[in-house]
Amino acid sequence: MNSSLQLSADGRLRHLLTVEGLSRGLITQILDEATLYTGGGRKLPLLHGKTVVNLFFEPSTRTRTTFELAAKRLSADVLNIQVAASSTTKGETLLDTLKTLEAMQVDMFVIRHEASGAAHFFAQHAAPGVAILNAGDGRHAHPTQALLDMYTIRQHKPDFTALTVAIVGDVMHSRVARSDIHALRILGAKEIRVVAPRTLIPSHIEAMGVTVFNELDAGLQGADVIILLRLQKERMVGAFLPSTGEFHRDFGLTRARLAKLSPDVLVMHPGPINRGVEIEGEVAYGERSVILEQVEHGIAVRMAVMGLILGSEELQHENRRQRAPMNHAPR
Amino acid sequence: MNSSLQLSADGRLRHLLTVEGLSRGLITQILDEATLYTGGGRKLPLLHGKTVVNLFFEPSTRTRTTFELAAKRLSADVLNIQVAASSTTKGETLLDTLKTLEAMQVDMFVIRHEASGAAHFFAQHAAPGVAILNAGDGRHAHPTQALLDMYTIRQHKPDFTALTVAIVGDVMHSRVARSDIHALRILGAKEIRVVAPRTLIPSHIEAMGVTVFNELDAGLQGADVIILLRLQKERMVGAFLPSTGEFHRDFGLTRARLAKLSPDVLVMHPGPINRGVEIEGEVAYGERSVILEQVEHGIAVRMAVMGLILGSEELQHENRRQRAPMNHAPR
Amino acid sequence: MNSSLQLSADGRLRHLLTVEGLSRGLITQILDEATLYTGGGRKLPLLHGKTVVNLFFEPSTRTRTTFELAAKRLSADVLNIQVAASSTTKGETLLDTLKTLEAMQVDMFVIRHEASGAAHFFAQHAAPGVAILNAGDGRHAHPTQALLDMYTIRQHKPDFTALTVAIVGDVMHSRVARSDIHALRILGAKEIRVVAPRTLIPSHIEAMGVTVFNELDAGLQGADVIILLRLQKERMVGAFLPSTGEFHRDFGLTRARLAKLSPDVLVMHPGPINRGVEIEGEVAYGERSVILEQVEHGIAVRMAVMGLILGSEELQHENRRQRAPMNHAPR
Repeated sequence: MNSSLQLSADGRLRHLLTVEGLSRGLITQILDEATLYTGGGRKLPLLHGKTVVNLFFEPSTRTRTTFELAAKRLSADVLNIQVAASSTTKGETLLDTLKTLEAMQVDMFVIRHEASGAAHFFAQHAAPGVAILNAGDGRHAHPTQALLDMYTIRQHKPDFTALTVAIVGDVMHSRVARSDIHALRILGAKEIRVVAPRTLIPSHIEAMGVTVFNELDAGLQGADVIILLRLQKERMVGAFLPSTGEFHRDFGLTRARLAKLSPDVLVMHPGPINRGVEIEGEVAYGERSVILEQVEHGIAVRMAVMGLILGSEELQHENRRQRAPMNHAPR
Repeated sequence: MNSSLQLSADGRLRHLLTVEGLSRGLITQILDEATLYTGGGRKLPLLHGKTVVNLFFEPSTRTRTTFELAAKRLSADVLNIQVAASSTTKGETLLDTLKTLEAMQVDMFVIRHEASGAAHFFAQHAAPGVAILNAGDGRHAHPTQALLDMYTIRQHKPDFTALTVAIVGDVMHSRVARSDIHALRILGAKEIRVVAPRTLIPSHIEAMGVTVFNELDAGLQGADVIILLRLQKERMVGAFLPSTGEFHRDFGLTRARLAKLSPDVLVMHPGPINRGVEIEGEVAYGERSVILEQVEHGIAVRMAVMGLILGSEELQHENRRQRAPMNHAPR
Repeated sequence: MNSSLQLSADGRLRHLLTVEGLSRGLITQILDEATLYTGGGRKLPLLHGKTVVNLFFEPSTRTRTTFELAAKRLSADVLNIQVAASSTTKGETLLDTLKTLEAMQVDMFVIRHEASGAAHFFAQHAAPGVAILNAGDGRHAHPTQALLDMYTIRQHKPDFTALTVAIVGDVMHSRVARSDIHALRILGAKEIRVVAPRTLIPSHIEAMGVTVFNELDAGLQGADVIILLRLQKERMVGAFLPSTGEFHRDFGLTRARLAKLSPDVLVMHPGPINRGVEIEGEVAYGERSVILEQVEHGIAVRMAVMGLILGSEELQHENRRQRAPMNHAPR
């Protein structure tokens, strides 16, 4: 899929479809911008008068909520539209939906769809003034998740070139894994590992610049950051996996396993967690976990992306001036 | 049903229940007002502090969205309530629902209901300060659809007295057809035709001042405007129709048929379209189609109706002054 | 359950979980505050920039609507989250949901849950800046309903110490009954009666300071206020009740029964009513009924509680100054 679609001729962000093809500079700009929005605080007028539609073909209350919060904190009007995927399986019908919504003069669509490439499809056909923000398309990409992961890592370990990152679990079906791998490579991570049973590793994934491990302890050895992936319940049957118990025994992150690692390793997870499957409950809220920070940063990163794409130059400038960390009012 | 219910003693709009009984002057006022809201642009404070509730007994994401957008662009607070029709079949229960919501000091209810007359029922029992806006009741009326259709026609062909308009398809079950016919007559259209197989034409429809055609090419001959109706899937079985394929062959608007007509004929459809049934996909977004304009105008017309009913005199005046077309900032 | 959890060290309201344990002074303060919000009127900036999430594990459009309206009238951003109760049966999962939402920097959660104690559970684990408002938990408590009931009673009969109040119907399963009993005791009501068939009276309820009646006419004799309870349809089968017809005959409030009582008795019901079960339709909107006042007061009381918990001292002060009844603009 053509990632240049998301940039304007002068290199500015027009849509956000995938991390692939973004420059290190642009990612850094987004993360820097997000620092203006962390720590809560006031509602900002950056998107006052703009309309953001959450167009979810795949239900996800949690993800929808983070985008809704981000847009409302920037004073946008937000509409939630939940579409039964079954009713729009054909590209033509998808296009009818998009064209109709565009005619309502919506400024941004946040789109989640079970089909890989759906967000690109929308961006290809979107009218000039309309932005598409990919909130997850099939197994393809989940760029804001990757950006919030990078933000969270950078808060704790600012030098990516020194980092070994282990991505653990159902890599095969994970758009989060794909987007994280792209982001880590662009930011120059020293080593990126994927750790999973053979059945959950896509073939040829080494071409993405990662090292494959089929054994957990070896994969975690020397890691600075562990990104656990959610094991979708519906994938836990049949050919991929023997049982969730077995998966937990072999690939679940437990206190015992964590105790063998560096004391400042970061434990991350895109949520929602499956306790006792990919992670032990105590680890999820343990002292090495930054899972709740990820949630908080998710709002800030989404505000940053929305602001960069939709905010007027003047308001963005004013915003940066007012929100400079030294003026930061405590929440 | 008593259409005078929707006007106050001095002839101002109090509810909008049906097009029937509106004066040409009042329709023209609504359409003129809507010109202030086309072309997108700023959020306006006209309904700041007002509460609009979308009360939908019949699900329709698309229609709900247009009313929600219209109300939010005027700075109203909007609540969406989806009621399972089954739970409120009796008039008494409907009344309980209305009374309860009224007590919450809602200023306007946008009501969609599968029963003809539901909006009138609510208006009859509504407290003095509460406005009812009919967003479609059974086969009876869909007044904002008719108004946006008139707006769209007027943009292209301002002289209604010169127009021949063909309404094509499932006239029998269509509240859009009924409301369009009323509006076209009030605005003085030269000729109004309904074009459909005999089974989809209501008996005695000639009394509404229309000419009936049971053959498409004859019905389209000389038309300036074609309004296609959506064929409800659930009506495509049984006694009414042999098959959708046969319907498309006999009554679908195709490029071939369109090529035989005047090059400036307008193709309209209330949406969502059924490709390959009442319309060929290429026609829907072809150069004679104004279907997407209809969607855009739908927001503007709904803003106009809401503003006329709920806006204070002062804010309406200020609004007209600021939004005069010559001051119109490009979107 | 520990009701002190809802008060800060200096006795101010921090969460609202239950009426139990609130002082007469604090309840009076909430009711006084609510007078500022009755009669409709302007939108107030008290909670501008605050985020309120309606987190409903048990569906209730009506209750959700009142909280949504209350928060929006105070200019908060409101998000509605409907959670399938089945997906969060375990405390651990509930906690994951709460922690995740907290990390999104929500200021208040309005929680409705089918399990008694759910709101307490959330309050126990909530981060310091996060408030919990109980919108009904199992059979335990529904404090805002009790407060709006007290508000409504006080409007008509300000001296609680002179009042005999009869609570009629399914006391067994009613959180409204429990919360009303606590509130009436705290405010010093002269006599509190519960009136129901034996099967719908919890054992040992006398310990709450009420008198039990198993016969309706005796229970209503001399009452100043009648609070009817909603009979849940799903409880109308099996061991508890013979039939709804029989219940109506023995415990339904009819015009005939009402005619035998004092002409200024108040008829109350938390809604939605079951016509012909606990109440005759004509009584529901008759002249002794204050059921619709209860709905209106429900918004005001919820605004008061939200404002007291979340509003800044300065804005609360300004608010009281501007909204003093003598300056009250008519709606």
